[in-house]
Amino acid sequence: LNRIKASGLKLRFCTNETQATREKFVKKLQGLGFDISVDEVTAPAPAACRVLKERGLRPHLLVHDDLVPEFAEIDTANPNCVVIGDAAENFTYANVNEAFRVLIGMEKPVLISLGRGRYYKETDGLKLDVGAYMKALEYACDIQAEVVGKPAKMFFESALAEMGVTPQEAVMIGDDIVNDVGGAQQCGMRAVQVRTGKYRPCDENHPYVKPDAYVNNLAEAVDLILQQL
Amino acid sequence: LNRIKASGLKLRFCTNETQATREKFVKKLQGLGFDISVDEVTAPAPAACRVLKERGLRPHLLVHDDLVPEFAEIDTANPNCVVIGDAAENFTYANVNEAFRVLIGMEKPVLISLGRGRYYKETDGLKLDVGAYMKALEYACDIQAEVVGKPAKMFFESALAEMGVTPQEAVMIGDDIVNDVGGAQQCGMRAVQVRTGKYRPCDENHPYVKPDAYVNNLAEAVDLILQQL
Repeated sequence: LNRIKASGLKLRFCTNETQATREKFVKKLQGLGFDISVDEVTAPAPAACRVLKERGLRPHLLVHDDLVPEFAEIDTANPNCVVIGDAAENFTYANVNEAFRVLIGMEKPVLISLGRGRYYKETDGLKLDVGAYMKALEYACDIQAEVVGKPAKMFFESALAEMGVTPQEAVMIGDDIVNDVGGAQQCGMRAVQVRTGKYRPCDENHPYVKPDAYVNNLAEAVDLILQQL
Repeated sequence: LNRIKASGLKLRFCTNETQATREKFVKKLQGLGFDISVDEVTAPAPAACRVLKERGLRPHLLVHDDLVPEFAEIDTANPNCVVIGDAAENFTYANVNEAFRVLIGMEKPVLISLGRGRYYKETDGLKLDVGAYMKALEYACDIQAEVVGKPAKMFFESALAEMGVTPQEAVMIGDDIVNDVGGAQQCGMRAVQVRTGKYRPCDENHPYVKPDAYVNNLAEAVDLILQQL
């Protein structure tokens, strides 16, 4: 990262993290030695806040407790939509049912989902992600959620706008074949898959997503980008 | 019901109830004055038990506590499938995640769902049904559940076999346009929709299910059937 920053290239961190505010997320990465600040992060919750404000929507929130501060400036009285994030232990039957009742009570239910991930890995094993609960509510109400966060096109476009660059000028580096690589490419960007984290060998035979390049780690990705300047 | 029984016609109760054993279900109906016994009831849990035994499957159960006794004779050690019912408050994040982990750990995940209902009504309001959680697990594991219970063809075929009649000789009476009427018709039976319970006026414009007749209540359905004998 320091080499990228030293080269004068613009940099933006695009995360689907919805279990914590950007502040917490950044502190964690700083603790791991990364040079990163909150205003360099594009994340689903602030993207959702922009959508809510633009459309005059007041959300019923089904999110992780630690994410709630991101919605501090949003009016949540008398809700006319539901925002769902990776609520983890907050996905009790009572809470999911409450979100369902808010939706089914609307003439035209609006469900905004902070990502569509199936599951993720934690130290104690795999955990169901927001996408599974999004699907449950979609089916129960016979609706389609609007996804903010990767791989939504709008999410990548926000990140590009924040940097002031065109898709053709940008490269996405990520470990997730669909959410990172596929999403960025659909937006007109090039995308490099890193063979770490979520990467699995079978990704290289993915039926419809083909990265522009593979690298074994982040340092290799930086080499590749700096070489091609 | 007494008029049907007096006429010599065979009768079978087909329920998607998965929050209680047939014993409890029957006691409730007996309490309401119905002449009904356990061996007249076709329900998803015993149908699932037959499937489990036939295929040597040992289920991880994600069901309502009150339904567990229906699986008393089933081996649940070292599970090689998941059975999901309307678990209601048992649909905690931890429990749904545990079912997910069992499935994702299998080479070819087998998910058996005791119905595919979206929601139902209780005195305190609408409640999410098993179908929503089935969809969550289907999405997370990228699989298709096998549904036992209405509207599955196999379920109606079991009921017919238990009575020893052909589909052409049978009439389904129900309030649910898709699960009762649609399911029975797909099996070759005729079906009458009762304008009570789950019935909604918009059912009469359903895009693909058209009952053979409508009646305003159960007594009218009995009139209709006895008239046409």
